Amino acid sequence: MNKNDFAPLPPMGWNSYDYYDTTVTEADVKRNADYMADKLLEYGWEYVVVDIEWYAKGAGSRRSEYQYIPFSTLYMDEYSRLLPDPDRFPSSRDGAGFKPLADYVHSKGLKFGIHIMRGIPRNAAHSHGAVLGTDVTADDIADPSSICRWNPDMYGVRDSQAGQAYYDSIIELYAGWGVDYIKCDDICNTNAYPHAPYSGKHEIEMLAKAIDKCGRPIVLSLSPGPALIEHSWHYKKYANMWRITDDLWDQWPLLLDMFRRCELWQDHVSKGCYPDCDMLPIGVMGKGFGNEWRSNFTKDEQKTMLTLWCIFGSPLMIGSELPLMDEWTVELLTNRQILSMLSPENRPHQILRNEEEAVWEAKNDANGDHFAALFNLSDEERTVSVKISDLTVSGSETVKQNIADFWTGERLSVDQDTISMKLPAHGCAAFKL
Amino acid sequence: MNKNDFAPLPPMGWNSYDYYDTTVTEADVKRNADYMADKLLEYGWEYVVVDIEWYAKGAGSRRSEYQYIPFSTLYMDEYSRLLPDPDRFPSSRDGAGFKPLADYVHSKGLKFGIHIMRGIPRNAAHSHGAVLGTDVTADDIADPSSICRWNPDMYGVRDSQAGQAYYDSIIELYAGWGVDYIKCDDICNTNAYPHAPYSGKHEIEMLAKAIDKCGRPIVLSLSPGPALIEHSWHYKKYANMWRITDDLWDQWPLLLDMFRRCELWQDHVSKGCYPDCDMLPIGVMGKGFGNEWRSNFTKDEQKTMLTLWCIFGSPLMIGSELPLMDEWTVELLTNRQILSMLSPENRPHQILRNEEEAVWEAKNDANGDHFAALFNLSDEERTVSVKISDLTVSGSETVKQNIADFWTGERLSVDQDTISMKLPAHGCAAFKL
Amino acid sequence: MNKNDFAPLPPMGWNSYDYYDTTVTEADVKRNADYMADKLLEYGWEYVVVDIEWYAKGAGSRRSEYQYIPFSTLYMDEYSRLLPDPDRFPSSRDGAGFKPLADYVHSKGLKFGIHIMRGIPRNAAHSHGAVLGTDVTADDIADPSSICRWNPDMYGVRDSQAGQAYYDSIIELYAGWGVDYIKCDDICNTNAYPHAPYSGKHEIEMLAKAIDKCGRPIVLSLSPGPALIEHSWHYKKYANMWRITDDLWDQWPLLLDMFRRCELWQDHVSKGCYPDCDMLPIGVMGKGFGNEWRSNFTKDEQKTMLTLWCIFGSPLMIGSELPLMDEWTVELLTNRQILSMLSPENRPHQILRNEEEAVWEAKNDANGDHFAALFNLSDEERTVSVKISDLTVSGSETVKQNIADFWTGERLSVDQDTISMKLPAHGCAAFKL
Amino acid sequence: MNKNDFAPLPPMGWNSYDYYDTTVTEADVKRNADYMADKLLEYGWEYVVVDIEWYAKGAGSRRSEYQYIPFSTLYMDEYSRLLPDPDRFPSSRDGAGFKPLADYVHSKGLKFGIHIMRGIPRNAAHSHGAVLGTDVTADDIADPSSICRWNPDMYGVRDSQAGQAYYDSIIELYAGWGVDYIKCDDICNTNAYPHAPYSGKHEIEMLAKAIDKCGRPIVLSLSPGPALIEHSWHYKKYANMWRITDDLWDQWPLLLDMFRRCELWQDHVSKGCYPDCDMLPIGVMGKGFGNEWRSNFTKDEQKTMLTLWCIFGSPLMIGSELPLMDEWTVELLTNRQILSMLSPENRPHQILRNEEEAVWEAKNDANGDHFAALFNLSDEERTVSVKISDLTVSGSETVKQNIADFWTGERLSVDQDTISMKLPAHGCAAFKL
Repeated sequence: MNKNDFAPLPPMGWNSYDYYDTTVTEADVKRNADYMADKLLEYGWEYVVVDIEWYAKGAGSRRSEYQYIPFSTLYMDEYSRLLPDPDRFPSSRDGAGFKPLADYVHSKGLKFGIHIMRGIPRNAAHSHGAVLGTDVTADDIADPSSICRWNPDMYGVRDSQAGQAYYDSIIELYAGWGVDYIKCDDICNTNAYPHAPYSGKHEIEMLAKAIDKCGRPIVLSLSPGPALIEHSWHYKKYANMWRITDDLWDQWPLLLDMFRRCELWQDHVSKGCYPDCDMLPIGVMGKGFGNEWRSNFTKDEQKTMLTLWCIFGSPLMIGSELPLMDEWTVELLTNRQILSMLSPENRPHQILRNEEEAVWEAKNDANGDHFAALFNLSDEERTVSVKISDLTVSGSETVKQNIADFWTGERLSVDQDTISMKLPAHGCAAFKL
Repeated sequence: MNKNDFAPLPPMGWNSYDYYDTTVTEADVKRNADYMADKLLEYGWEYVVVDIEWYAKGAGSRRSEYQYIPFSTLYMDEYSRLLPDPDRFPSSRDGAGFKPLADYVHSKGLKFGIHIMRGIPRNAAHSHGAVLGTDVTADDIADPSSICRWNPDMYGVRDSQAGQAYYDSIIELYAGWGVDYIKCDDICNTNAYPHAPYSGKHEIEMLAKAIDKCGRPIVLSLSPGPALIEHSWHYKKYANMWRITDDLWDQWPLLLDMFRRCELWQDHVSKGCYPDCDMLPIGVMGKGFGNEWRSNFTKDEQKTMLTLWCIFGSPLMIGSELPLMDEWTVELLTNRQILSMLSPENRPHQILRNEEEAVWEAKNDANGDHFAALFNLSDEERTVSVKISDLTVSGSETVKQNIADFWTGERLSVDQDTISMKLPAHGCAAFKL
Repeated sequence: MNKNDFAPLPPMGWNSYDYYDTTVTEADVKRNADYMADKLLEYGWEYVVVDIEWYAKGAGSRRSEYQYIPFSTLYMDEYSRLLPDPDRFPSSRDGAGFKPLADYVHSKGLKFGIHIMRGIPRNAAHSHGAVLGTDVTADDIADPSSICRWNPDMYGVRDSQAGQAYYDSIIELYAGWGVDYIKCDDICNTNAYPHAPYSGKHEIEMLAKAIDKCGRPIVLSLSPGPALIEHSWHYKKYANMWRITDDLWDQWPLLLDMFRRCELWQDHVSKGCYPDCDMLPIGVMGKGFGNEWRSNFTKDEQKTMLTLWCIFGSPLMIGSELPLMDEWTVELLTNRQILSMLSPENRPHQILRNEEEAVWEAKNDANGDHFAALFNLSDEERTVSVKISDLTVSGSETVKQNIADFWTGERLSVDQDTISMKLPAHGCAAFKL
Repeated sequence: MNKNDFAPLPPMGWNSYDYYDTTVTEADVKRNADYMADKLLEYGWEYVVVDIEWYAKGAGSRRSEYQYIPFSTLYMDEYSRLLPDPDRFPSSRDGAGFKPLADYVHSKGLKFGIHIMRGIPRNAAHSHGAVLGTDVTADDIADPSSICRWNPDMYGVRDSQAGQAYYDSIIELYAGWGVDYIKCDDICNTNAYPHAPYSGKHEIEMLAKAIDKCGRPIVLSLSPGPALIEHSWHYKKYANMWRITDDLWDQWPLLLDMFRRCELWQDHVSKGCYPDCDMLPIGVMGKGFGNEWRSNFTKDEQKTMLTLWCIFGSPLMIGSELPLMDEWTVELLTNRQILSMLSPENRPHQILRNEEEAVWEAKNDANGDHFAALFNLSDEERTVSVKISDLTVSGSETVKQNIADFWTGERLSVDQDTISMKLPAHGCAAFKL
């Protein structure tokens, strides 16, 4: 299997985190899957991802004290492999795991993903749990000095045959459930160790090998960011997507900073290899955090976000509760012209970035498709322009006079030298040349 | 109680680590205590310190794999407090703890010390053990993200009332045993967190408060080094001694580097407050490490070490097996003139340091005692001198013509301007003005 | 000469910078000296210091572009030594230098100080100027890679005999003028080189040697801060005062941060050795910066500043135009009780510091004087207290019931355990036990 | 002009530095050009580059003290533009500059390159020299705080219109001389400022714009390394080649480390965009350094170097005196098979790297060419192999049984799974699939 074939396009889907934090239930997942199948699937949205601590008893029950309750009960099988919390995922009882839920999602024509933490449960190490296919126990493969800074569940796994066996065993289990996508956390940037932020390197390789062995094309997504540019080749070799940012929330400074991050990673997007700008914090979020709110992004900021993610080639994961989305948000996510830019065949290229504006293009050398986007990064209305000579216009390509913005349908101003448009604060235009 | 009265002189004693690693037994401790009482006590040597993992079952039994076996059994009482391994310390059975051994040591006119790791046992947190005097359990006070980089036994304790209660409870237990000296490890420099190397600051304060409450004058010694000079005032306020170096072993480059460290800390020695140059790696070491050896330091290097430690004012802890010391080593450790420099009344002062030589003095403003030492740091014989004008000679002080080296008894050369002596490579002279 | 005798008390005086920037003239200096002699001298204020670029033609004339005009004319003698700008300091013409102005200042019973930059003028190096007492030229002693990050005037001087000769030559010149105080800049922390912030170490030593040779007791003050705590012993050995902060201006966050800095340096104040909290930004400042303003500090903040500087033992330098001070400010600076705390005999000691409050004491072991101060660091009125047991009260010392605040004369509340007072936001009380 | 067309293949040539340091003369350049035209041109070697300080009077004359004499005479025209030293380059007199020498080189069918330092001469700033096409002087555009850590000649140029004018003026002059290649130093990594190692970013852009304006396709090469991976997109946008290493000399550890560097940069080689592994330290070097020597690399190491440079796609610059090369070295440099790998059409890809071995491939997707190389990085003979499944063998591609090493002509061992060869210490094999 070539892992680059697992995700020929940047994955598009929904993730439970921004709305549910650690509290998502089977019913919640189904409700969002139903909505996606009904309203979004035809536009390419297909992944349904259960995020962090689906295995933790009472997750979220002491939210004012802890996001992740330390030293609490994590459901495991006899081989130190985590299992869904049966209270929240009733269909998982009696050893079924996530198979029934995955089946449901698949029945809708969708794909099923789960979140995992790097490593093996600390509880398994302290209780000397078994490791499938080996004669060692969890304490032999757990590294007591390899922990996550922000989550207390796991110890890192040592680089050894028995360690590989553990990763093989969990991936085999997940593959058996029908998992199509794994988001592994505390691995892209192991920031507990500022002096060794890529300390999970061998675990990335072990995961990739385990997936290769399991026979199921499971997309591998790495978190959290920021990914380390000096390891770009390694992410590309072993993973399908990797977060280039820490958690993105609905604040303009974070979105603005994403332009810098995309600049950094612009040469690293290719089929099966996607720098990941993180979930889209739109619609309604926060219930599991104890504070439900509607996205603080303006409409222009939301368009800017979608445009940047698409022209750059980032995966698209909706972070909010799907059934609570309003009409406008649904339209935002189903703009076929904008989504048409989202292909690794379209090589992204930043033409310009300064304090006030950014300009990007994406070009498909095979079929000649050529997209561009103008961004107003300033806090005031502003005409943003690009010199045609700065676009990588090939000899045979003539710039049309009639260029319309994908969002508004309005014509951009085109003269001999430049293409320009007046844009609202934090707004953008996207178009095809 | 004023903690500065607990150790009016820099503590002098023996520590089990350099010879036994984690494997020391009750019989070993007694044998060394007997020797100290017989041969060294009259010179000021009095502390007998049991170093790391006296509480760990099977400590040292998998030495080729681990120095500290991860996830192994640590003996604890019902309040999550560590107890001596009954196999190695038979007298500790039935709840006696270290009391019988401390009594034995005290009966010899000596003082008894133990090593602890910062925090509460990980096992206690995972098993939700009780905390004396509180209605919480260990998981409530253990910080799952606060670990030691090099030892897997403990979690750090949170800064809270219940956390203080835990420290109170262990110090109360140790005070009841008759402990006179506690060496707390992973606290002076919490180097698992290079970005936050003083993350145990609140635990230092909690320990100091617990000692103040317990009513017994227990000397508090902090490890490992290097201590952080920017926290010098904090060490002084709460502890009696703090390591200014990582582990010192019998290699000249490490000893040479101590001159730099003493330079840094020269203004921070006072009664009850001792920057600590670490144990003296002399005599025979290494049995517990699986590799018994005699100190690699030359005799001149050993003299240089003793001279620097004494004129600077460091605690003196012998790291080797006392009964295996040869005659020459015993003489080294019982030179009354050299040891007479070891007083916080004698304020140390580095006069000079360069690649080839160092010169120190120490002066007692109260009684007028004035010591100096010349060090040859080069690899060849060399005459080292000090200008009399560089010594802080007071108006009334006249430099004698007859100055003898404490080690050899030989006279130094004194002329109008300088005092000098020809010294072997890595050698020294020490004298009284 | 013992440099610690040059300044037996922390220097108190006036500095031209905060009001004049680079533009101060002879008349300005005299006007401030007159004022000081009339109104402040009797309280201990005595130093009159001419700050940066007294040697630069047209200094301040292109202020909107540059604070320090690059590549401009610097007046020099035939030995590459800087001379006062004759336009601004007319009495300096014909080789007189600052002698006439120094004489004037001395005639008032005051002391005269100047600012210099580390190194030798870049112009001298490029024009191969002579160096007095040597047969080399400036290009031989200037280090082309040693520059100041923020001022373009000088190159650092190499560590060599000829380099020492240059420093000897300038100090000899200044001593001949009657200079009593030299503030050398770009030397305490050479922050052009974050990886080598003490790159001027050898130049500090050369300056100290030159002063020792010159026969005049010239106080040596090092800037800018923050001084490096790991070199504390070196500052003490060679200088009289060193800035522990970058420039202090009249903003509460900067003053608040000084509590942290004083905590760090509390053990390093002794006769002739003064960590320096920088000038007092009170009264009227800014004319030379093109923007005259009255201090933004509240009255309570100003009292807090004076109290901290005095109980800690910092030099006191007024940064504003003296004749423009109002009555209240003059009273602030002439409170004899507050100023009585300013003695290196009084050892400072921070008792407590947290987000809301700080408590300090200073004790003179010789005469028994014992001062304390309570600070309200919070933004609201607050009662601040100190436990009497936390004060280093000696056995013979009894805490009086009648303790009055030095600023208001009001009695503090004293009970068996604590001393307390209600303090306004950012306010303080100071008193004698 | 599209700068990527200026160098469709990684540049191959000779550079004066490794043999001449700063002392190269016109005769030396011609002698090497003659040799290149005779012996090497037909293999692709064509650039003749005059390295550092061709403008400095007396360069190299005080070599025991300085590599670059500070504050010395730099030849300039009336517009602050550096000119060749007429003593070393007689044909440059009377305003001819390098034109006669460039003409000579061109007459041989070769290309002519020069080295420059980032910025404007310090002397010009201090003497307020004119800037062509502006009414400002050098002091207005020179940044006094922007210097090179290791060379005293220049100040950086400010980011301004007048600064651009200066760069335009020098490039116009060089273009007029017929310069084909500019190696700009102190710009790829401005390591005087570890906190701001890309402080010359705007000067790279100014240089690129000046070249674009000048109308001559001048290859832009940036030094020194290591280039900063986070700015890879910027190097690609503005330059043709950039050093990914500090100076490479003939020491195995440096060559070994290049494997790590090539790993890092493997995805950044494309037409007109070349990460640069630095000059080849082979043959005879060092005359200008006062110490002529023959390369310390073994023959195997030299082959390994050539192989890595070629399969990776680095420019090739010979660092030694060409006429002094022996037969073996000439053969090394004229192996047509090895050189055939040197094309940006061949995308490089590291398959494996560990302590003992490395394996690379390079594949041309257009024409199907597929190269691979095996490297023995260990210090002992060793069989190195690659799994065929790890090669990016396309469906249509069949691995031949008859694969011969480009260096020895010997057949590699090919079985169903692997290709392997026994290699000497530090040796390699290269072949076509």
